[in-house]
Amino acid sequence: MRYAVLGTGIVGRTVAARLESLGHRVVIGTRDPGATLGRPEYADWQEVHPGVSLAGFAEAARDGEVLVNATGGQFSIAALTEADAAHLDGKVLIDIANPLDFSAGFPPGLDPVDDDSLGELIQRTFPGLRVVKTLNTMNCQIMVDPARVAGEHHVFVSGEDAEAKKLVRELLHSFGWPQESVLDLGGIETARGTEMLLPLWLRLMSALGHTDFNVHIQGA
Amino acid sequence: MRYAVLGTGIVGRTVAARLESLGHRVVIGTRDPGATLGRPEYADWQEVHPGVSLAGFAEAARDGEVLVNATGGQFSIAALTEADAAHLDGKVLIDIANPLDFSAGFPPGLDPVDDDSLGELIQRTFPGLRVVKTLNTMNCQIMVDPARVAGEHHVFVSGEDAEAKKLVRELLHSFGWPQESVLDLGGIETARGTEMLLPLWLRLMSALGHTDFNVHIQGA
Repeated sequence: MRYAVLGTGIVGRTVAARLESLGHRVVIGTRDPGATLGRPEYADWQEVHPGVSLAGFAEAARDGEVLVNATGGQFSIAALTEADAAHLDGKVLIDIANPLDFSAGFPPGLDPVDDDSLGELIQRTFPGLRVVKTLNTMNCQIMVDPARVAGEHHVFVSGEDAEAKKLVRELLHSFGWPQESVLDLGGIETARGTEMLLPLWLRLMSALGHTDFNVHIQGA
Repeated sequence: MRYAVLGTGIVGRTVAARLESLGHRVVIGTRDPGATLGRPEYADWQEVHPGVSLAGFAEAARDGEVLVNATGGQFSIAALTEADAAHLDGKVLIDIANPLDFSAGFPPGLDPVDDDSLGELIQRTFPGLRVVKTLNTMNCQIMVDPARVAGEHHVFVSGEDAEAKKLVRELLHSFGWPQESVLDLGGIETARGTEMLLPLWLRLMSALGHTDFNVHIQGA
């Protein structure tokens, strides 16, 4: 499969590397490829991942059969607008971002929150996309390697399109998620629930002093 | 110990019954005791729990050494105002409520949310109280009988006062919570995290078709 991962941060790079290791063709999308390659952090990573290519948002979105939104949540709509709706129509977008709002410092709040979510906002703004919200409730290392956390734990899935969710389930399985660990919450509206888990996640990070944890719904 | 449980709904009654079964003296606080006794649901319950008394908010708060806020979150400040600050000063208030806002129908949203929480609002409005937020992340049957859900799962604690938290830990232990299941998140600000778990809880209830589940933080 050809994947376009939008976003060059640690989340995007971690998912891109995992997809490539599974034999997929992967292009990372960014606003300005030249500027991204000028960042030592990215350039160093690129050197050890020569098989992953880098392109502007529009070119990446055109090349990808499946898209992954790993941009900062406050910039997701701008990035997808730049990607161009013509390159999005009919495609599955796996939204792993959170609408973290750092405008009042740390810990960040969420925007939108409560009566809307980033997942819904993306689906509403780009109705041609088949948005599946998932993986946004954990550290990116756990996303692609769930065995990092011992014992059973869950990954949530929200979205309107059954076929798109089936594709995402298979991808999650290839990442190492057992079928029984994938908890389908329903339509994209349920993304409100998983995005609003982030405030607890941030406080758990502070209380525990690490990020190698994940939620398990006991009794599910 | 003398407990005053504010709120006559299923949450308040469940906690009151459990406290009484543990040998505590329990008074339930309500706005209008006559009106409450006129509700068949409450009257039936009262009949099988004759040891629990019913009183107005002020009388209940005066009698209780420890207070439990089990009112609807939108009415908590009004209830505590009626209870009278003079009856609150220096006391521990165990806040098990959530600021559920049903003004836009079901599922409810939260108000306050994200940049504030009910726990903080109560602590700020009644600085003489020693507020501990806990138990608000699960069905009330599980609050008082955690073994209802098989396997390990967590109850969170938020608050500023170490002594008050110690009292709450002991109470939770008497309810059946093992020490390792009590996860102290830090100050009352962390109540934002646990209150914002409710939107996910509500969607899990819909997806699973029951409420006999609870969150376990795997890797904590």
